[in-house]
Amino acid sequence: MKVLIIGAAGMLGAKLAARIADAGELGGRTVEHLALVDVVEPPVPSGWEGRARAEVADLSAAGTAERLLEPRPELIFHLAAIVSGEAETDLEKGYRINLGGTQALLEAIRLAHEADTDYVPRLVYSSSIAVFGAPFPDAIDDDFQQAPLTSYGAQKLMGELLVSDYTRKGILDGIGLRLPTICVRPGRPNAAASGFFSNIIREPAHGKEAVLPVPETVRHWFASPRSAVGFLVHAATLDGEAVGPRRNLNLPGLSATVGEQIESLGRVVGADAVKLIRHEPDPAIMSIVGNWAERLAPARAAALGFEAESSFDEIVRVYLEDDAASYPG
Amino acid sequence: MKVLIIGAAGMLGAKLAARIADAGELGGRTVEHLALVDVVEPPVPSGWEGRARAEVADLSAAGTAERLLEPRPELIFHLAAIVSGEAETDLEKGYRINLGGTQALLEAIRLAHEADTDYVPRLVYSSSIAVFGAPFPDAIDDDFQQAPLTSYGAQKLMGELLVSDYTRKGILDGIGLRLPTICVRPGRPNAAASGFFSNIIREPAHGKEAVLPVPETVRHWFASPRSAVGFLVHAATLDGEAVGPRRNLNLPGLSATVGEQIESLGRVVGADAVKLIRHEPDPAIMSIVGNWAERLAPARAAALGFEAESSFDEIVRVYLEDDAASYPG
Repeated sequence: MKVLIIGAAGMLGAKLAARIADAGELGGRTVEHLALVDVVEPPVPSGWEGRARAEVADLSAAGTAERLLEPRPELIFHLAAIVSGEAETDLEKGYRINLGGTQALLEAIRLAHEADTDYVPRLVYSSSIAVFGAPFPDAIDDDFQQAPLTSYGAQKLMGELLVSDYTRKGILDGIGLRLPTICVRPGRPNAAASGFFSNIIREPAHGKEAVLPVPETVRHWFASPRSAVGFLVHAATLDGEAVGPRRNLNLPGLSATVGEQIESLGRVVGADAVKLIRHEPDPAIMSIVGNWAERLAPARAAALGFEAESSFDEIVRVYLEDDAASYPG
Repeated sequence: MKVLIIGAAGMLGAKLAARIADAGELGGRTVEHLALVDVVEPPVPSGWEGRARAEVADLSAAGTAERLLEPRPELIFHLAAIVSGEAETDLEKGYRINLGGTQALLEAIRLAHEADTDYVPRLVYSSSIAVFGAPFPDAIDDDFQQAPLTSYGAQKLMGELLVSDYTRKGILDGIGLRLPTICVRPGRPNAAASGFFSNIIREPAHGKEAVLPVPETVRHWFASPRSAVGFLVHAATLDGEAVGPRRNLNLPGLSATVGEQIESLGRVVGADAVKLIRHEPDPAIMSIVGNWAERLAPARAAALGFEAESSFDEIVRVYLEDDAASYPG
């Protein structure tokens, strides 16, 4: 099987490539070739120098999608996106990359399918809980309306609609995944409004201070990077018939308050770590976070076998096991 | 006030233009000029020869939207679309017109707004209950998910998302209307899968036979052309603040079975008319209709003052009053 990962230089894309390279197979099918694409050079998993090709390309540029599809990959992960902050400040760029890039990919798949109707690749599309906007019910169930309150959320949802529609037409076999907020993100603190959810765990775990801009009562919906990669791999091998026509799934995750996050940090890392969290309320961040989903009830995805952590202690331990050793600070 | 109607040659667009011309005002503001645009020549309401301009133009063609906005219309109705049947058979054209046309319009408004930030026009966008897809609850409430099962529904929903997002950014002041199936449509029987809902009333009312391709138990969600024009006019003058951030509204309508439609025909027109309905079951049409919404519970729109008929007898009478005299047969 040939696999294409678009967005392979991002945190999830790189972890996904490493996991596929490590297993050498997906759902019992041997992976012969990995094509890794991003707007910056993606890392090639060790030992895969001959069987992986890393490429710098912009999916939204004319001709890119057609070229990426030339080897006719049977499995495509589309993880490439302008992140929420940039999509909010640069409306034109956000729509061009997040919507236009997805359109370009799907149109290229359509043309490839029309040339050879046996070509119906599995497409795994990373969407986000940002497709939902407040006010929310106590838990967002699988029937709750999508009313995004960010441009990023609107663009991800438009991509979802394309994935469903092209799947319904038999052009591709798509699954959209509404990823929870990924926590603990490895690497350096970043400027994303959601960054603090990871910063307050990662930085203290390494003896560094972290700023908490919201009250400890703030509740949010999380999964670890390990679970997120697990979602992508599971979606790649899932029986499409079992999914049915609604191809975009609310995923399992863990609902926790910031206070519960901090308690887990104390239990798993220690009381000294907790003292490194500095409370600096930021009304701007608080007003953004107030529109974010707090809890989902993802019955369909659970029935389809998607799994995430069941406690925030686990999420902290996953960070220590998978990413702490490569802390850049 | 300058008003632009895009899609002004369609059934609703022409009725809307006539109604605005007749009143000469909207929400207490005098209408000085009507710009009427469509891909075929739109009719100019009588007496408005000096104050209305009819123009043949394709919104999705480069430069069209910018040109239409040159007079800086304070109120824009965007009703132009490829209908569901054609959007389903010609995927590329459907996305180009229904999504691309809407994108072109909104981008042109953005550029006009950036040149003059006081320019924030009211945009009334015609969406459809096709944004919903089966399976449905007993009644679709204002929180039910949008999971379209047609390309037309997906495209209309993508337009809705653009309207909300550009409104949230302060570029325009948009309202999206999820129109019920319009019944009784005037004119000749058409080939749309939904055509029979109107055909079985209109044709027998004029002494002609009509074909019913589905069982009488089929239930659907209706409003008259008069109500639909009323929705558009009400949306044009509604207080945007009262609508809030969720700018796309499920509209009032009437839930009726085909059997109830036929009973109304008998009561309002007569028993002889009912005998002109020929039952010819068509499994292809039945399978399409099975995915259509049967009943909504549009609490928000009702609270905002939108109104529709409360009995199918009324819908039949509205046809006789407004359109029967211009029956083309």
